[in-house]
Amino acid sequence: MPVDDCVFCAIVRGEAEASVPYADDQVMAIMDIAPVTPGHLLVIPRVHAVGLDDLDEDTGAHIWRIGHRMARALRRSGLRCDGVNVFLADGAAAFQEIFHVHLHVFPRYEGDGFRIEATWATRERSLLDREAQAIRAVLPG
Amino acid sequence: MPVDDCVFCAIVRGEAEASVPYADDQVMAIMDIAPVTPGHLLVIPRVHAVGLDDLDEDTGAHIWRIGHRMARALRRSGLRCDGVNVFLADGAAAFQEIFHVHLHVFPRYEGDGFRIEATWATRERSLLDREAQAIRAVLPG
Repeated sequence: MPVDDCVFCAIVRGEAEASVPYADDQVMAIMDIAPVTPGHLLVIPRVHAVGLDDLDEDTGAHIWRIGHRMARALRRSGLRCDGVNVFLADGAAAFQEIFHVHLHVFPRYEGDGFRIEATWATRERSLLDREAQAIRAVLPG
Repeated sequence: MPVDDCVFCAIVRGEAEASVPYADDQVMAIMDIAPVTPGHLLVIPRVHAVGLDDLDEDTGAHIWRIGHRMARALRRSGLRCDGVNVFLADGAAAFQEIFHVHLHVFPRYEGDGFRIEATWATRERSLLDREAQAIRAVLPG
């Protein structure tokens, strides 16, 4: 169901402006209006879903399939593109800002200004095993 | 075809240690040994592919489907998880370090130390339209 105050639903309905490199009956690719790099696009489902929890798996797999195709296209587009990042933010704690699920696909090149910071300390195997077990325990059937 | 000096191929062959929350005939999920946050895992295909260009779409869609399932599981695992990021680095310019394609899925919470930096200036519609056209022009079919 479309959501009235959702900008991506407005784009899907044709009521808000967008630059659209690709669309089909399930998803649209739209250019991000504040790109990390030129060519930065978003793949969004036509159906409104907030995030990964309320998005059905088949639609999710199609979003990814089109994102994959877009990543390949970026490398052939003539836009500067020496690499590609694919990124999804699920939840405010993960930097989601628009609460209609969207997959970021953007070109990368040296000096593009995109950076990630984290602390990547090597973790003990016993802890990794315990965490794997905690995840395995809640996987569906 | 497995690649001799690839650590992920060695894990797939059972010759290198891994903590494995999930595996099937196409993919494995393994805990990242240097996690951004506890619970950080990677979904890798059993077949060796360097990146998105040499990965077939069906395997890619399955990697994503399992990543989606893992993201949902992280929220139910008891590990600290208020949000989830899904990230893929395709090419050295995009921060890829191990050249066997892998999808990062990691829990997020306030104060977890993960940060992104970029310049997100709003871009003119005429440029976005031109970039959409450049991408559309090289899409298959």
